Amino acid sequence: MKIIRQPAVMMAWAKEQAKSGRSISLVPTMGFFHEGHLSLMRRAGQLADQVVVSLFVNPTQFGPQEDLAAYPRNFQQDCAMAAEAGVAVLFAPEATEMYPAGFNTTVTVGTELTGQLCGASRPGHFAGVATVVCKLFSIVRPELAVFGEKDWQQLAVIRRMTADLNLGVEIVAHPIVREADGLAMSSRNTYLAPSQREAALCLSRALALARTLAAAGERSAERLTAALRDFIHSFPETAVDYISFVQQDSLQEVAEIDEETVLALAVKIGGRVRLIDNGKVLA
Amino acid sequence: MKIIRQPAVMMAWAKEQAKSGRSISLVPTMGFFHEGHLSLMRRAGQLADQVVVSLFVNPTQFGPQEDLAAYPRNFQQDCAMAAEAGVAVLFAPEATEMYPAGFNTTVTVGTELTGQLCGASRPGHFAGVATVVCKLFSIVRPELAVFGEKDWQQLAVIRRMTADLNLGVEIVAHPIVREADGLAMSSRNTYLAPSQREAALCLSRALALARTLAAAGERSAERLTAALRDFIHSFPETAVDYISFVQQDSLQEVAEIDEETVLALAVKIGGRVRLIDNGKVLA
Repeated sequence: MKIIRQPAVMMAWAKEQAKSGRSISLVPTMGFFHEGHLSLMRRAGQLADQVVVSLFVNPTQFGPQEDLAAYPRNFQQDCAMAAEAGVAVLFAPEATEMYPAGFNTTVTVGTELTGQLCGASRPGHFAGVATVVCKLFSIVRPELAVFGEKDWQQLAVIRRMTADLNLGVEIVAHPIVREADGLAMSSRNTYLAPSQREAALCLSRALALARTLAAAGERSAERLTAALRDFIHSFPETAVDYISFVQQDSLQEVAEIDEETVLALAVKIGGRVRLIDNGKVLA
Repeated sequence: MKIIRQPAVMMAWAKEQAKSGRSISLVPTMGFFHEGHLSLMRRAGQLADQVVVSLFVNPTQFGPQEDLAAYPRNFQQDCAMAAEAGVAVLFAPEATEMYPAGFNTTVTVGTELTGQLCGASRPGHFAGVATVVCKLFSIVRPELAVFGEKDWQQLAVIRRMTADLNLGVEIVAHPIVREADGLAMSSRNTYLAPSQREAALCLSRALALARTLAAAGERSAERLTAALRDFIHSFPETAVDYISFVQQDSLQEVAEIDEETVLALAVKIGGRVRLIDNGKVLA
């Protein structure tokens, strides 16, 4: 596996592949790989000749009060895991290479998709995501890119941006990978103390509860939200950031749930670790 | 010459060229071609195998009080002129193809480059320009794109955006083409009544005056600006929008002019026709 640090070197490599008729799939990541990332890489490998994984803890998508400095990193282990997963290139640029002096351009997706859910509590987050993904697509020129469904809103924002800017990259959504007990895999799970790890099950269990209530006939987003809020707050050290029933593509809140509704959850555990989860309720 | 209306068809054509190893140069225009456009097309033809000219009167770069509806159009004549200039493809999409329902993405360059000069009196203009040029670059995938220096600020904004988003397109600047009497060529010159056509010479003559004063030793932007303002207002029906001495790349105002200083001018003629011009003062 090749490790590339410079955008210009990455672009040159990608051009070589294009000349040789080899297709590229991209998996954008912030590193600290777990089974969720590896499943994205394996999926990418099934869909194109060469897999490029970007590893970049993108500063512009973190707010000033967020966990940029603390975000978990383990470059050596990430390299070993990516190589094992059959990745051709790990593209790991420095922030100064991605945002050199004078950098001054932002890609934004409108508030219809970015004003709610994570966008409400993380202003600027999705502009940071859209801008860096636009850059990565330009640098790597992949035919397709694989993103995890855990970040459902991110997926919707990237789909929108990719279509709107004619980037010509197919966006592939990959299902959430979970721990045996149901917790959605996340690099941020490493922040959890053992007691908090227990409490973190409130998210996947709230999803399960919503499905049970929906299967029993409940369709009111308002009543479901109230039930889930009580349920989540019955776990220690939990504070709901949002419980939203949204239309899967538009991310607009719905009053009555149906087959196209996604339940999106964000919960703070121990006042510090913000976890998200989502899923369809009727499927 | 091929005329293409659909972005997807344009992308497919561009991919074919890439496969065949033929390079593409792009000239983005709003049509109603004059010698200025033709000189860009000929330059583009010298620099790549295939010239693509986009003809799109981009609604998002016009303000609500501006001349979008009135902007001059002559598609048949434009086709004939482009074909004559050796253009391979005229890409002329409808606005509904460029901005389909649900379109929701904007590319912005920060106010260091977009807050002054034309950006001050045309809010949103450069976001419209940056977004559409980003789209055109993605659709046409050119190796280089040729822009006229008449729109000096536009050129700076596009250079910035292209570098920042790693678009991999070389930006080629082409000198202003002028009428015999010095007026910078512009599709908007057709708005001018005969008496106003005379008055429109105030811009190129103000540039000449600045050069004369600078050659005589004047270096103060403030004094030069005052002299030029009086000079321009000595022409009938003129109102200065701005007279600015700026550093050529950063577009930051300078107090003392030097070899890197560009004089940028915008003047309204007859309260309706806004013309621009620019040039180095010491060269």
